[in-house]
Amino acid sequence: MSLLRSPTDPRWVAVALSDLDRTVGDHAHCEKKAAATAMKLVADHPTQPRLVRALARLAQEEQQHFLAVLNELEHRGAVLPPDEGDPYAQQLLRLVRSGPGRLLDQLAVCALIEARSCERLALLGAALPPGRLRDLYLRLAQAEACHERLFADLASDHAGEAEARSRLGALAEAEAQIVAALPLLPRIH
Amino acid sequence: MSLLRSPTDPRWVAVALSDLDRTVGDHAHCEKKAAATAMKLVADHPTQPRLVRALARLAQEEQQHFLAVLNELEHRGAVLPPDEGDPYAQQLLRLVRSGPGRLLDQLAVCALIEARSCERLALLGAALPPGRLRDLYLRLAQAEACHERLFADLASDHAGEAEARSRLGALAEAEAQIVAALPLLPRIH
Repeated sequence: MSLLRSPTDPRWVAVALSDLDRTVGDHAHCEKKAAATAMKLVADHPTQPRLVRALARLAQEEQQHFLAVLNELEHRGAVLPPDEGDPYAQQLLRLVRSGPGRLLDQLAVCALIEARSCERLALLGAALPPGRLRDLYLRLAQAEACHERLFADLASDHAGEAEARSRLGALAEAEAQIVAALPLLPRIH
Repeated sequence: MSLLRSPTDPRWVAVALSDLDRTVGDHAHCEKKAAATAMKLVADHPTQPRLVRALARLAQEEQQHFLAVLNELEHRGAVLPPDEGDPYAQQLLRLVRSGPGRLLDQLAVCALIEARSCERLALLGAALPPGRLRDLYLRLAQAEACHERLFADLASDHAGEAEARSRLGALAEAEAQIVAALPLLPRIH
């Protein structure tokens, strides 16, 4: 079951489809940053073998997704646009505490970003006409769901189940508020 | 033919073998940073499709190498050590110009780091007893040779063959001096 406390505004899908090149370009950057974030966590916690192994594998998978989305851009005759930044992720990351709660919060925020990405890729996939882009999005939505689970599990491993659940709940409430306040744009978040 | 202007001091191999856990751990960090550097170049030059495609693939390959080296660490009963930093790469990167020559210099420095890594992984592979670690290093040395070629080709695509060759030559001279001044340690550079 998804960690999200609110569904995406149903009007988002039409906005995303209205400028699909921009949405797909933004999605490519999401995959790129997901790989980089996972490897940053590896670099910051090298002596935790389970975390290192799991996140190094995840980074490899995100890297494969990045290549798959680049392929789609090329197929559409588009190039990777400049990265516009991600106010959604930036606002969530501002909630990460320093000190002992830091890693738990980082893992929880990653779980929530994966959860929202999963929801939106599935919405996009379902709304696209039959074809390669629809197939890709439905496939990637499933992968993001696994990543959400992985980050939630790593959070529990790290902080214990009760504390992880409590913090995930608090951050999920905050995530719903952040999403509600952001404009609907042709991008993933 | 390698871009390098000097061979590694032959005493390095014995030093690297004397603390193989540390050498292999350092090597894991090299692969991690190679993937990150490639993706940073992608992020900084999103609208250059050939560069984006080639370096995104390369990052994926470096990520696979990182996982392969993590496997070896686990097989040896070691964990990934903290990243000690890489004075060799840091000194080379200080030679990168700002302004119009920046991308050429970045590609040239990457080509040289790959060339030195290729040379040292091959030396290590050749000195190891028959077995999985030897096989891995001989395989990875070949991969790094391809990466050296790729970065040199991207440098030529970007700046033209004459300018790329000239700058690669100048930076290769500097690289040889940097290597000669560094202590011999159980690490890749």
